[in-house]
Amino acid sequence: MSIGKIAELQPGQKVVGRFLVARKELREARTGKKFLDLTLMDQSGRRVVARVWEDAESVAEGFEQGSVVAVEGATETFRNELQLRLEQVRFVPSEEADPREFLPQSAKDIDALEKELAEVVKSVGNEHLRELLLSFFRDDAFRERFRTAPGAKTLHHAYVGGLCEHTAEVVELCTKVAEMFPDLDRDLLLTGAILHDVGKTEELTWQTAFDYSDAGQLLGHLALGERMVRSRADRIEGFPEELKLRLSHMILSHHGTADFGSPKLPMTAEAIALHHAEDLDAKVNMFLSQIRAAREQGRQWTERHFLLKRALYVGEAEQSEPPSEDAGDAD
Amino acid sequence: MSIGKIAELQPGQKVVGRFLVARKELREARTGKKFLDLTLMDQSGRRVVARVWEDAESVAEGFEQGSVVAVEGATETFRNELQLRLEQVRFVPSEEADPREFLPQSAKDIDALEKELAEVVKSVGNEHLRELLLSFFRDDAFRERFRTAPGAKTLHHAYVGGLCEHTAEVVELCTKVAEMFPDLDRDLLLTGAILHDVGKTEELTWQTAFDYSDAGQLLGHLALGERMVRSRADRIEGFPEELKLRLSHMILSHHGTADFGSPKLPMTAEAIALHHAEDLDAKVNMFLSQIRAAREQGRQWTERHFLLKRALYVGEAEQSEPPSEDAGDAD
Amino acid sequence: MSIGKIAELQPGQKVVGRFLVARKELREARTGKKFLDLTLMDQSGRRVVARVWEDAESVAEGFEQGSVVAVEGATETFRNELQLRLEQVRFVPSEEADPREFLPQSAKDIDALEKELAEVVKSVGNEHLRELLLSFFRDDAFRERFRTAPGAKTLHHAYVGGLCEHTAEVVELCTKVAEMFPDLDRDLLLTGAILHDVGKTEELTWQTAFDYSDAGQLLGHLALGERMVRSRADRIEGFPEELKLRLSHMILSHHGTADFGSPKLPMTAEAIALHHAEDLDAKVNMFLSQIRAAREQGRQWTERHFLLKRALYVGEAEQSEPPSEDAGDAD
Amino acid sequence: MSIGKIAELQPGQKVVGRFLVARKELREARTGKKFLDLTLMDQSGRRVVARVWEDAESVAEGFEQGSVVAVEGATETFRNELQLRLEQVRFVPSEEADPREFLPQSAKDIDALEKELAEVVKSVGNEHLRELLLSFFRDDAFRERFRTAPGAKTLHHAYVGGLCEHTAEVVELCTKVAEMFPDLDRDLLLTGAILHDVGKTEELTWQTAFDYSDAGQLLGHLALGERMVRSRADRIEGFPEELKLRLSHMILSHHGTADFGSPKLPMTAEAIALHHAEDLDAKVNMFLSQIRAAREQGRQWTERHFLLKRALYVGEAEQSEPPSEDAGDAD
Amino acid sequence: MSIGKIAELQPGQKVVGRFLVARKELREARTGKKFLDLTLMDQSGRRVVARVWEDAESVAEGFEQGSVVAVEGATETFRNELQLRLEQVRFVPSEEADPREFLPQSAKDIDALEKELAEVVKSVGNEHLRELLLSFFRDDAFRERFRTAPGAKTLHHAYVGGLCEHTAEVVELCTKVAEMFPDLDRDLLLTGAILHDVGKTEELTWQTAFDYSDAGQLLGHLALGERMVRSRADRIEGFPEELKLRLSHMILSHHGTADFGSPKLPMTAEAIALHHAEDLDAKVNMFLSQIRAAREQGRQWTERHFLLKRALYVGEAEQSEPPSEDAGDAD
Amino acid sequence: MSIGKIAELQPGQKVVGRFLVARKELREARTGKKFLDLTLMDQSGRRVVARVWEDAESVAEGFEQGSVVAVEGATETFRNELQLRLEQVRFVPSEEADPREFLPQSAKDIDALEKELAEVVKSVGNEHLRELLLSFFRDDAFRERFRTAPGAKTLHHAYVGGLCEHTAEVVELCTKVAEMFPDLDRDLLLTGAILHDVGKTEELTWQTAFDYSDAGQLLGHLALGERMVRSRADRIEGFPEELKLRLSHMILSHHGTADFGSPKLPMTAEAIALHHAEDLDAKVNMFLSQIRAAREQGRQWTERHFLLKRALYVGEAEQSEPPSEDAGDAD
Repeated sequence: MSIGKIAELQPGQKVVGRFLVARKELREARTGKKFLDLTLMDQSGRRVVARVWEDAESVAEGFEQGSVVAVEGATETFRNELQLRLEQVRFVPSEEADPREFLPQSAKDIDALEKELAEVVKSVGNEHLRELLLSFFRDDAFRERFRTAPGAKTLHHAYVGGLCEHTAEVVELCTKVAEMFPDLDRDLLLTGAILHDVGKTEELTWQTAFDYSDAGQLLGHLALGERMVRSRADRIEGFPEELKLRLSHMILSHHGTADFGSPKLPMTAEAIALHHAEDLDAKVNMFLSQIRAAREQGRQWTERHFLLKRALYVGEAEQSEPPSEDAGDAD
Repeated sequence: MSIGKIAELQPGQKVVGRFLVARKELREARTGKKFLDLTLMDQSGRRVVARVWEDAESVAEGFEQGSVVAVEGATETFRNELQLRLEQVRFVPSEEADPREFLPQSAKDIDALEKELAEVVKSVGNEHLRELLLSFFRDDAFRERFRTAPGAKTLHHAYVGGLCEHTAEVVELCTKVAEMFPDLDRDLLLTGAILHDVGKTEELTWQTAFDYSDAGQLLGHLALGERMVRSRADRIEGFPEELKLRLSHMILSHHGTADFGSPKLPMTAEAIALHHAEDLDAKVNMFLSQIRAAREQGRQWTERHFLLKRALYVGEAEQSEPPSEDAGDAD
Repeated sequence: MSIGKIAELQPGQKVVGRFLVARKELREARTGKKFLDLTLMDQSGRRVVARVWEDAESVAEGFEQGSVVAVEGATETFRNELQLRLEQVRFVPSEEADPREFLPQSAKDIDALEKELAEVVKSVGNEHLRELLLSFFRDDAFRERFRTAPGAKTLHHAYVGGLCEHTAEVVELCTKVAEMFPDLDRDLLLTGAILHDVGKTEELTWQTAFDYSDAGQLLGHLALGERMVRSRADRIEGFPEELKLRLSHMILSHHGTADFGSPKLPMTAEAIALHHAEDLDAKVNMFLSQIRAAREQGRQWTERHFLLKRALYVGEAEQSEPPSEDAGDAD
Repeated sequence: MSIGKIAELQPGQKVVGRFLVARKELREARTGKKFLDLTLMDQSGRRVVARVWEDAESVAEGFEQGSVVAVEGATETFRNELQLRLEQVRFVPSEEADPREFLPQSAKDIDALEKELAEVVKSVGNEHLRELLLSFFRDDAFRERFRTAPGAKTLHHAYVGGLCEHTAEVVELCTKVAEMFPDLDRDLLLTGAILHDVGKTEELTWQTAFDYSDAGQLLGHLALGERMVRSRADRIEGFPEELKLRLSHMILSHHGTADFGSPKLPMTAEAIALHHAEDLDAKVNMFLSQIRAAREQGRQWTERHFLLKRALYVGEAEQSEPPSEDAGDAD
Repeated sequence: MSIGKIAELQPGQKVVGRFLVARKELREARTGKKFLDLTLMDQSGRRVVARVWEDAESVAEGFEQGSVVAVEGATETFRNELQLRLEQVRFVPSEEADPREFLPQSAKDIDALEKELAEVVKSVGNEHLRELLLSFFRDDAFRERFRTAPGAKTLHHAYVGGLCEHTAEVVELCTKVAEMFPDLDRDLLLTGAILHDVGKTEELTWQTAFDYSDAGQLLGHLALGERMVRSRADRIEGFPEELKLRLSHMILSHHGTADFGSPKLPMTAEAIALHHAEDLDAKVNMFLSQIRAAREQGRQWTERHFLLKRALYVGEAEQSEPPSEDAGDAD
Repeated sequence: MSIGKIAELQPGQKVVGRFLVARKELREARTGKKFLDLTLMDQSGRRVVARVWEDAESVAEGFEQGSVVAVEGATETFRNELQLRLEQVRFVPSEEADPREFLPQSAKDIDALEKELAEVVKSVGNEHLRELLLSFFRDDAFRERFRTAPGAKTLHHAYVGGLCEHTAEVVELCTKVAEMFPDLDRDLLLTGAILHDVGKTEELTWQTAFDYSDAGQLLGHLALGERMVRSRADRIEGFPEELKLRLSHMILSHHGTADFGSPKLPMTAEAIALHHAEDLDAKVNMFLSQIRAAREQGRQWTERHFLLKRALYVGEAEQSEPPSEDAGDAD
């Protein structure tokens, strides 16, 4: 019994396979009949709604949200969405199938990235800022969340380890920017770069799928992150008030404009540098992953992207004529 | 020696009078000469730049920012602004002239408003919320700031006591709204109404003039207020997490849209009710004070308002007198 | 033969039931064949397209738009929409099934609301305004439309009696606002509140479904309402011109901004108060009805709303801690 | 005693000349002293504030708003504006100086334009529309206002007769458009073109200066014009309802977008044609008058225009003279 | 074997017919299996995706993109889109079925339009501009593209010959505008009108369907057209620099605003006149074609248009009153 | 006779000094009298209007726009602007005073920057791109303009050599970005970085002041630069069409959005990377120069910036010196 592929489901098809239970609710139909309402996920991160109508209550006791289950059933179309109607749902113990394998993973070595960040932390000369950074990274609960969190729900770095990867890239860019502009306060800029998205460890959930927590939806990672940083800074003796203020400002303003959720525009040189470095990294990653996926499908243009409001140009990756050795250069 | 009236200054005029020192800087001209650069304020809240060129350093030692001073000098025009060039600046001790009198004051009885709010606090049934409110109002330092803070720098309730007045009005409106819509959580709505602008006690400064603090400019009263509320709620045992979340969300979202600085749109019924009640109160106050001022000047229309982007209609004739039978015509 | 439930239709299903004919057109297919193109509605207000291909012309003679019909047929999918292909369509006389029952109804007592409004009318001191109000409510044709009109096509108060309900709520809020701000002209504000949406009696149609009339689409209820009010005021002798102007302005500007269809921004204190009171009432109603519906389905968040551009937070209906008996209230 | 030229006033200068009284208010200074507050206008349409402090009350009795006066006094600067402080103000009877000469005039022959429009009215085949047009133009009070009204306060056709001139141009364009697109309803389009701005006869005032009436500010010429057209159409027997609706829609939507004050977007072919023809005429006139004025001052670019948000290119040299061989280079 | 009609395809249906191959890709499924991925078009311009799974590679050799093919297969639904699964695909030689017939055609006589434009070219007095125009129209390759290009991909004049038709209409309007405003440089305005959209001959492709070229997507017809005009003008001796500049500016700015892709706002009178004339023509054409199509379907309103963001009013095709013979005209 | 300082001009003051003639026009007053209308500039780049009324015509013959002149006269205020009324104007030959010295200069070593760029050019592996770059830098006329052009008229790098400095910084950032993202085409990205602003050599003028050329105003540096790059690429044999397209697209889209003048959004990964790198460099430079200037004036906040729409935070005190024990407080 192989792992199911949601992308390949067709209407009117039998389905046998293993999925992760991303959501599980025991509900009551209008007729009063109980049914089990599930969202199943495969390893690509795709999801499908599935329903169990027979013995829903006893079936529901056999597994939890976050479990892997082996199912049998069939597809059906409901209000223009493909769904599953399940006949059987069997719990698969985690020794047999690890739920974490159902989430997409970073291709980078997270240990190595963490070490890089640790080197940067060491290089921060201002002792208050360095102590603040260490208070985060010496907290194992935080570290574990920081290492595994995705960079976003869907837009960029949307995989386990993505937050760490994105942070390391922004730090690398800011290191360059600090070198180019000696008037910038390097310690402050790098501290801001490392901490700018720590709020995502509370904004997002990624146990069984990538989603927003309630706090994430209602407050957002800017406010959550600012609070995390501030409350740790408040516990460090002698931490200058103005430095706290500058750091809080960098976190709250790093989306750059009100439209993207920053309650304040960047008003310091370090804040504007952080915003642009962050934006550059996010956007280049979005573009490259969109283009890569389209190229694999042999397309010349990507689909129009709902947020970027444009299609991206892939170009003639494999040119129609036989490519010469240096075709890559020509492209 | 009477208090000076900045509104009446004319070019090329001798000036003798008392003013509040709203800003004081000892600066160096390009030629190397030291001069004292002041901003003086009168009781209307109007301000004028004034400069002392003779013995600037010794004069500067005679008083502080926030002092009342008696000055002699003359007006001069510099880059299209009227300024003062001062010959004499003498410190006036506060027994002789109270600096607080130089700030505009609420026309309401602040003690009475505070009692009204205290009654509302008592009526809050949810013990966590009530305890939270009491933790604010039993803190004398906070209470003092809350009682004296203006409601805004310039736009509405811009006078000592204005925050208290605005808060009481929003609470009165929300009481009505809670009565009309029983599905709303009255305790939560009123708690949010009372606390929605507490961040203004840190965003604004009003010792010697109404202005933004640095923290106010860089973080804003939404983030500052949410932090104040959250940190007090965190110290109350058993305060439900979801309730904290709903309250933080109300404070962060109460400006209603990103354009007005809310990082999140209101997403609960109490949050949307608070936003609209707050907006109604602020706007009606702005309109009434603009119209009142224009009517006193015998105008039919107000000046175009930079933020409202419109002139307001005052209309014909006076109406405060008892209307005669055909008052309708005059209206 | 029971009333059909459109929400429960499934692909590939036989259908037998009664529906209201919300639209009826006899059309010609490209092949030249005549067919009957219907929109059927059930009591929930949901609609489905249905087609009759056999003997379309003679079937069409058996009933009118607005009739209740008993149908037999089957579902089919056409361009991703579920439709009905009908074999039989039989007219059901209104004694047997009242077409009005197919529209959603206000849960409030409309007679009582009307009496409340009548009391407010009596309390209006300005005789011209009072006479204007009476000219509306003594006109039985208007009253009948006003009592039955929905408050909007879909967004808020979208049920028979909704306009009356919404108006009464806005009046209640404005009564409070007038009490809080004595500088407001209470008579004018309440008159504006009562009349602000009278144009909806011409903008909307609700005989067989809630929709826009052609005049509603092309002119909107602001222009339609202003015309209704103005033409009645013009017939009242001695009605002051400025008062007409202020009232017309309130109606045209009550949506607050150009984006929401007001050709002029509110420029009087009564106009801004009306706008905000109206907006508060509409938005709180939208939020509460969205949240209520989602809570009934056991959801923690509503669907994203196309106009509000957000999902709303419902919260943990069954709280994680053991709830006390009245936990629901506290939430 | 020549007519004064406001554009040539300098600070610290004696002034003797004749001006039109565009505004006259007897006011009270804060000290209780009465003063006369005037706005004077010269024939270029420029205005200056002037004040009389001596015997203000008796001086005020000598003339009315709209009179021409002969003044003596001096310039003074007040809050960065040049003002006049008048010693003498003497009434000049209209035989001696006609107040109408103080307003800018159309360069076109208004009688001829009116005749052109009358020909177009005759060519309208639909009798209801023709009767509607005649009801306007046979009303002498309307005709007089229509002939003399400016096309706008400042933006385009801002001179006596400008409305008539603008209307004739829009009609000429629409005649062409109707000829090019036979699917358009020519009668309706031309009727809309003739009537589209009749509301300006009530929106603007031009007795002593070009300004907005109160009704103009509060309702705008779209709503005012639609009411004028509708109330006349309502008095014509048998005027089809749909035709009234289409015409009302054209007038309300002719500004094209909500941002420019149309409560509804154009939704008929005649409405969109009218909008674009009207916009073309207004914009080309604005461009040409800006460019002409700048060319007369020997400039290569106009000043940045506050509404167009751009400077316009005038270009090099004169071109009206017969070009020499190398005229191309000069262009 | 008749030409297929894509609009009539139903789920679960056999399909036999001829279509144009608008796109042809040989792709590899995730399993490694090769399949042929086609987009087929019928003469209405509608398109459907079709796939060949059997012998995809050899089938692919039988025809090219742009060929007409005779197919046999069946419809299937894939991710909510109707598709074809083809069993047979046979090449149809162009003698038997002309691919050009699969594209919609202008209803106008293109030869006649071209002659009209040639007359206008002759009437251009400025020899440099006339020479420039001739350099385009004496270039047969350009002329052929210009005669056949559509006016846009979908929005207006979307048929073979549409560019020529649109250009002729804009020229006709500009001729009128030049006559009305003698201050406009007629030669320049008409040259701009004729050349304003020549970039569309490179932006669009219309061999087998209307689409954007890669250059069209990445640069747009404004930049492409400006380059075409400029490079020809550069080859004409003595062409004045300022005239080149004015013409380039007209082409780059003719969309009127940044939102519609103009990198510069119109800043000359000829540029603003061209923009408005072009917009009028495009919009009136869009409105008329939408309304015409809806009227043919017996509808009173068009569907909401994604770009116009509104539905258009068609009106009561069959009027409630008995229509006279020419009722259509009156409507 | 020293160089005049415009910033220090006061009303009612004698003026003796040397200035650059940034504009020179011989004009005619309304009275018919000829006068000389000048704009003078000092070395700070500040400008003042100056007028010569005596012997204007003969004075005008003594010097040209771009000359340095020695003047004597006095300040006067005209319509709220300080002006000069000159009694004497004497030409100063360039041996005595170099006009170039009146322009602000880059603080960087332009020769060194050019060498850096030359190294980058050498590192470009793609021979077509390298040849294109060399075609620019081997053109001495271009090189001279490129070395001396400012980076913008006022916003950032507004000094002689600024374009070169800005380009070198963008190249440095892109080098880093290319290293971080190996999927990016490094050769293309660096070529785009080097050439992205070459259009500024035609958009701006900087002989006697920084201003826009007519072509700059009417076409902009994006269109001008794309044309420069394209016409050189067209002359390189075998330059792949797709590569030209990608490069043109990068230049046209590098402002990122329509609002900032890009007719197309970035649609390739290299284009988005270039846009963000360019934006980062421009914004960080703007922030740092604003903050530096304000700090020199001892201010805690900069003035509100018209384009950034915000004031920037400077903060307390100097920090570059070794902080004392209580530096935290001072910070």
